[in-house]
Amino acid sequence: MEQHAPAPLSTTQFPADRWWVAALSSELTDKPVARTLLGRPVVLFRLPSGEVGALEDRCCHKSLPLSCGSLESRGLRCGYHGLLFDRSGTCVEIPGQDRIPAKACVSSYPVREQDAIVWIWIGADAHARPTSAPPRYAFHADPQYRFGGGHYHYDAPYQLIHDNLMDLSHLGYVHLKTIGGNAALHMGAETRVSSDGDTVTLVRRMPDSDPPPTYTAAWPFAGRVDRWQEIEFHVSHIRIWTGAMDAGTGDLHDPARGGFHMRGFHGITPETETTTHYFWTVATNPQHDIERVAQTVIEQSAATFDEDKTVIEAQYRNQLRFPGGRQIDIHVDAGPNRARRVIERLLLEPA
Amino acid sequence: MEQHAPAPLSTTQFPADRWWVAALSSELTDKPVARTLLGRPVVLFRLPSGEVGALEDRCCHKSLPLSCGSLESRGLRCGYHGLLFDRSGTCVEIPGQDRIPAKACVSSYPVREQDAIVWIWIGADAHARPTSAPPRYAFHADPQYRFGGGHYHYDAPYQLIHDNLMDLSHLGYVHLKTIGGNAALHMGAETRVSSDGDTVTLVRRMPDSDPPPTYTAAWPFAGRVDRWQEIEFHVSHIRIWTGAMDAGTGDLHDPARGGFHMRGFHGITPETETTTHYFWTVATNPQHDIERVAQTVIEQSAATFDEDKTVIEAQYRNQLRFPGGRQIDIHVDAGPNRARRVIERLLLEPA
Amino acid sequence: MEQHAPAPLSTTQFPADRWWVAALSSELTDKPVARTLLGRPVVLFRLPSGEVGALEDRCCHKSLPLSCGSLESRGLRCGYHGLLFDRSGTCVEIPGQDRIPAKACVSSYPVREQDAIVWIWIGADAHARPTSAPPRYAFHADPQYRFGGGHYHYDAPYQLIHDNLMDLSHLGYVHLKTIGGNAALHMGAETRVSSDGDTVTLVRRMPDSDPPPTYTAAWPFAGRVDRWQEIEFHVSHIRIWTGAMDAGTGDLHDPARGGFHMRGFHGITPETETTTHYFWTVATNPQHDIERVAQTVIEQSAATFDEDKTVIEAQYRNQLRFPGGRQIDIHVDAGPNRARRVIERLLLEPA
Repeated sequence: MEQHAPAPLSTTQFPADRWWVAALSSELTDKPVARTLLGRPVVLFRLPSGEVGALEDRCCHKSLPLSCGSLESRGLRCGYHGLLFDRSGTCVEIPGQDRIPAKACVSSYPVREQDAIVWIWIGADAHARPTSAPPRYAFHADPQYRFGGGHYHYDAPYQLIHDNLMDLSHLGYVHLKTIGGNAALHMGAETRVSSDGDTVTLVRRMPDSDPPPTYTAAWPFAGRVDRWQEIEFHVSHIRIWTGAMDAGTGDLHDPARGGFHMRGFHGITPETETTTHYFWTVATNPQHDIERVAQTVIEQSAATFDEDKTVIEAQYRNQLRFPGGRQIDIHVDAGPNRARRVIERLLLEPA
Repeated sequence: MEQHAPAPLSTTQFPADRWWVAALSSELTDKPVARTLLGRPVVLFRLPSGEVGALEDRCCHKSLPLSCGSLESRGLRCGYHGLLFDRSGTCVEIPGQDRIPAKACVSSYPVREQDAIVWIWIGADAHARPTSAPPRYAFHADPQYRFGGGHYHYDAPYQLIHDNLMDLSHLGYVHLKTIGGNAALHMGAETRVSSDGDTVTLVRRMPDSDPPPTYTAAWPFAGRVDRWQEIEFHVSHIRIWTGAMDAGTGDLHDPARGGFHMRGFHGITPETETTTHYFWTVATNPQHDIERVAQTVIEQSAATFDEDKTVIEAQYRNQLRFPGGRQIDIHVDAGPNRARRVIERLLLEPA
Repeated sequence: MEQHAPAPLSTTQFPADRWWVAALSSELTDKPVARTLLGRPVVLFRLPSGEVGALEDRCCHKSLPLSCGSLESRGLRCGYHGLLFDRSGTCVEIPGQDRIPAKACVSSYPVREQDAIVWIWIGADAHARPTSAPPRYAFHADPQYRFGGGHYHYDAPYQLIHDNLMDLSHLGYVHLKTIGGNAALHMGAETRVSSDGDTVTLVRRMPDSDPPPTYTAAWPFAGRVDRWQEIEFHVSHIRIWTGAMDAGTGDLHDPARGGFHMRGFHGITPETETTTHYFWTVATNPQHDIERVAQTVIEQSAATFDEDKTVIEAQYRNQLRFPGGRQIDIHVDAGPNRARRVIERLLLEPA
């Protein structure tokens, strides 16, 4: 299916020519969804056939958002005068008029749905087609895991969310009552940062420590635990693997180690230069009372994300109040700064 | 009564030197009403004598809106230090001070109340006086009709409301559950557009069709109907005569035809370049159970105007999101485009 | 304790090099308070020791407002990564890091707490130290008086509040039901305005008049009263002494006269050029049923301040709607205009 090309993306704003998270699959039901992604107003939708689509969110007749329209088997029908558009953006019906002019079309975007995530390709060149498949994320289909998630709209630029997730030392101050636990423990723990291309990895290990409240609520720990945090930064999303096992019962370097696991997926998609879509899921591996424990872990994770949103939006409003205010770096900034350098490099690369 | 002249109107924004709707009579009771009309902040009021007035909404002393004041037999008293202004804008009392300086005055506007409508004259030249009487609207006093109405504030420019009312083909999509009925019926119906000076007339006839829900709720139709829509555009307001009679029982070209009638008055007055006051009434001619049926017709009309407001404001927000976004014309745009050409011509005319 | 100097104040906006009211003492409890004062975002706080402090409201690490943090005996700890700042703005702890760089500091402001008021010094020169003590206000500690108060945020420039308080002739129109009483009485009363340096004094005497509702609710007047209003303008605050005694029982010029007294303290601190903090207290001298009467007087005063806020904010919004709208002066403007000339002169003085 040929698609109508959107306007090219300014590559000075956001890294282009890549897949970004447009939605969680669970968000696309029987109504179209309006969402601005990388500065572009898009309508996302799922046809009765199950196929997903993404069009410019503006009817080419009177400019009503197509997201005000309704879904039919052939496509999305405008809610004002009934023009019908298919997934390529072609107008396939103008009620009461036989001839459909060639200009009756809207831009469309490549979309792919896999692993319960809907990805959208935003190209620097308007006619550029995807040059790769979207990333896989296996834990959404792993029978050992239960997952749940949600979508946040942030009044803050996307890189402040990267900063937050790439440094979990804030857990002791912001999330004391759930996944945080002792503040000094995080601050003093061994932490290693490494990079590989556009990927940055940060590993923090906290052997022989006290498990935080969410952990003890979810897993029958005997006492103290060996705890880990492994964070993997990708430009479009961050994977955070945290967990713990009874102290001394396994190897913190063994990828197949046992115990309590939380697998976080964090899709961070710029909406505009100053606002962000944040899609998250948490998958966990309960051994008993499975649905209830999974629900507890997911709910307590959501609570921590609420706390982060409060902090990050307050931080951004304050940066606006103090234009040019200088910031100092401390030891915990190694991971966030490495991720920032990846984005800086991508924005400077020729398209 | 001499009046204090307001500042001249920029004639590049709105057609000047004419009567616009300032209010429905029912809106002016015992409290002054603040309303910006064609960019000018005005206070509208009714004195205990019944006379209506319109002044610049700013006390010449400390700038409090006069609409925060109170009405007395002699005029409108400011709510801060008690200065009293008559309908001409002259200050007739400064409490505690004998001498009233000549500068103690505010601008006033010519207003006329007739047919349950309050009209205001906005002149291009500040000292221009009305050169005509306001338009008459007989249906508000016709004993065969019951009417009701209301006032909307629109976050959209006034011509988007013209567009909407001059093309009732949207009824099938936007107002399906009330006055709309079959979408294809409207789209395929015979439609004639004609003009005469600043007036544009659009007639759509839909013989032998199914009556929409509001019609059958209001009138004991036997089955299929001969239905009409006659729209008359004037610069300051639009008159919409819709209705139906049992199929084959009358002549759709006969102005005195029987059946179910709805007479809509739509006063559309710019507030600013991007916002609008929309005053509407619907008059209908019930034959049985008169008050209840009239109430039903008025309420269902109000419901359709709510739907229009949602669509038009969404349309305008989207036009702002896509500056320079091109629009295509389709067959239903003939009426709206004719009305737009009237406004364009008036804005180009020398004052 | 050395302090970190804030940026210099533009002296074209507000009179600098003086004490302004930052808070009522009762506002500083166990949580920090965010407040912008003269354009500067400040966090105010009270340590467990009782000492008060004022810092720039931005952590020098990641810019989170310090007002999102928590109080400890040593100072204020940031709520993101736990940096701890003392009252001088020096960072005294960075969790997980031994070395504290010299740049790890935030600006601090001189503050003094006395008479249940927290004062802050804002200097034109960043390094300027206070050259005087804050003004005293004895009525908050006088055993003959009970007082209460509160804080308002105004969407209006501070001088509109001066205008309002320096002319109590509006009482008859705005506060008819509480402290106002007869409008003509105020407008016609003998009023004297005098100045001394930066202080303006306005005295209005209303002998042999009817007491307004709040007065009769608070004091067992026999009938008509000798009433007074004495207003003392200072750049940072206004003192308003009002009251009444049974007609003919004392001398309105005797500072030690008896009867019903209300002592108003009105701290008016610019937040920005267009918004203001307004701190008020009212102290009164009940002779019977002391707590209940004091409460009544304080509550009815609060009600009048609500009314003033409504008027003043409406006035300011209207001044914005009519840029360049001319205002005329009337007799009651003598006091407000004298106060405006004090501010004008201070803004023109070389720093």
